[in-house]
Amino acid sequence: MRSMTILTEAELRQIVKLDLDAVACVENAFRALATQKVAMPPILRLDIPEHRGEVDVKTAYVPGIDGFAIKISPGFFDNPKLGLPSTNGLMVLLSAKTGLTEALLLDNGYLTDIRTAAAGAVAAKHLAREDASVAAIFGAGMQAKLQLEALKLVRPITQARIWARDPASAERTAGELREHLGIEVRAEPDAASAAAAADVIVTTTPATEPLIHAGFVCAGQHITAMGSDAEHKNEIAPAIIRMADLYVADSAVQTRRLGELHHAIDAGLVAADAAVTELGQIVAGLRPGRRAASDITLADLTGTGVQDTAIATLARDRARTAGAGTLLES
Amino acid sequence: MRSMTILTEAELRQIVKLDLDAVACVENAFRALATQKVAMPPILRLDIPEHRGEVDVKTAYVPGIDGFAIKISPGFFDNPKLGLPSTNGLMVLLSAKTGLTEALLLDNGYLTDIRTAAAGAVAAKHLAREDASVAAIFGAGMQAKLQLEALKLVRPITQARIWARDPASAERTAGELREHLGIEVRAEPDAASAAAAADVIVTTTPATEPLIHAGFVCAGQHITAMGSDAEHKNEIAPAIIRMADLYVADSAVQTRRLGELHHAIDAGLVAADAAVTELGQIVAGLRPGRRAASDITLADLTGTGVQDTAIATLARDRARTAGAGTLLES
Repeated sequence: MRSMTILTEAELRQIVKLDLDAVACVENAFRALATQKVAMPPILRLDIPEHRGEVDVKTAYVPGIDGFAIKISPGFFDNPKLGLPSTNGLMVLLSAKTGLTEALLLDNGYLTDIRTAAAGAVAAKHLAREDASVAAIFGAGMQAKLQLEALKLVRPITQARIWARDPASAERTAGELREHLGIEVRAEPDAASAAAAADVIVTTTPATEPLIHAGFVCAGQHITAMGSDAEHKNEIAPAIIRMADLYVADSAVQTRRLGELHHAIDAGLVAADAAVTELGQIVAGLRPGRRAASDITLADLTGTGVQDTAIATLARDRARTAGAGTLLES
Repeated sequence: MRSMTILTEAELRQIVKLDLDAVACVENAFRALATQKVAMPPILRLDIPEHRGEVDVKTAYVPGIDGFAIKISPGFFDNPKLGLPSTNGLMVLLSAKTGLTEALLLDNGYLTDIRTAAAGAVAAKHLAREDASVAAIFGAGMQAKLQLEALKLVRPITQARIWARDPASAERTAGELREHLGIEVRAEPDAASAAAAADVIVTTTPATEPLIHAGFVCAGQHITAMGSDAEHKNEIAPAIIRMADLYVADSAVQTRRLGELHHAIDAGLVAADAAVTELGQIVAGLRPGRRAASDITLADLTGTGVQDTAIATLARDRARTAGAGTLLES
């Protein structure tokens, strides 16, 4: 008989929040990716086109962290018709020493939302201008909201514009964010105008054609593209990859295959084997981040297994301290 | 709030056993693999050499089956020093329509043991002589025991020899099997003698050098090699692949990379792109199985995600019927 802790979404929401601790946790994960012998195998992906479904399984082992997460992330895009969310999922936390299951984190995707938003904060912390105060968020879903909240943790954001394909969704999300964050947030139906005056642009959509065109981008801006986590997704015009003063990948192996970089390679604008700076290298001080106030910087985030391992072990540690969860013997 | 069923190892042992139903379930899985548009992505594998640990994640979607399993199988080979089993793991059963988690099968590897043994029975049913009565089992662990039990379900086995690297283990396992199965089972310390007189040879070891040499093999024998599920494992001399009248893979994609076939390819004995018969093609009647009593047949089993999906949905269906398991809301 072995015992494991089961944590429900409600319990996880109590113990892990989008705060500076979560940002530090994910920042440490990126540092480890750059400085340690992290084992992060290629993402396992299963497609079920009959139901517009896809499942990603991610994992990573970080030396020095005593557990590792295996995360199952389904996305079934006909679910809203059934009154169900498109995405959900869970994480299994295993002991790195014995392989025994330590915890089942039945988060329905909540921890993924947090670690993804936290990565946006880490990118902005190292790449956006210190005085960045205006944000443009593309998309009106959960990540749109969380990315703005995450930005506020690391930069003095006072204004935000929300653009979404559906203007009504943009209005609704802007209203919610205004209320929740207490800053000036408004919907902006014109994408170029939304981008133009922003210090930080964050794209959070499942777009398959670029939303951000080269003409939208001005000197001094930082862009975080976090929507593209599959070959066919594309939010940023490939020319921007080339015109940016600094392009940064969460994982070069992944962005060459799945991220915005992959479209720039396909377009012949970037060599497939071009050297790429990774976010963890900047966090670790191995490479510089933003150098000048006028730099255009771009972070290409596809989502990495080290983020999952980091947030899952944080949740497990917090649960231990709080005595949260249910012990199950099997 | 979504609900899922949690089934413990003890509950799963009650509802799923190594019997002809389990064999039929796995046989159907192989048939589907040959006849349907099964989606079975490459195995995700994470290695943690510091702790002699490895984790495989397997999955497969079979059209017509309303759920699919994602199986997490850790093997940590220093665990016995800590008084823990080397292998364990669990399966997550998701809805193929919505991606929602339907059941957590906390089987500690039990369902893998059953579906692996059942695959041995399927191989013997289609490849061993109908009158096969003498078995030689290489290895003395859980699969050694289950493979003999599985053989007995499909062939009139009356005698078995057990060979193991550690003769004391072979003696112990032989004694247990004699008691459990009520047939003549004895340990045989000489590998050549163990193989020589057998109608069916089953190898179940983690060997990295061949145990079965070409000179051990006689006309009329069937061999099932189920130990090799990773690049470095090897139980069967590559020459046997070439001398066999019929070589059968559970999945050609996998055996070319992980199985006994891969060593024969590396040795230059088989072309990397040589046509390979799959077990499912024989089950489905698309290719012949054994043709003559004197044929030497060889089944190379690496373990497939369709077996996991099949046994997991069987367990879920049985649990529903029996009202077994605990419902959890998250």
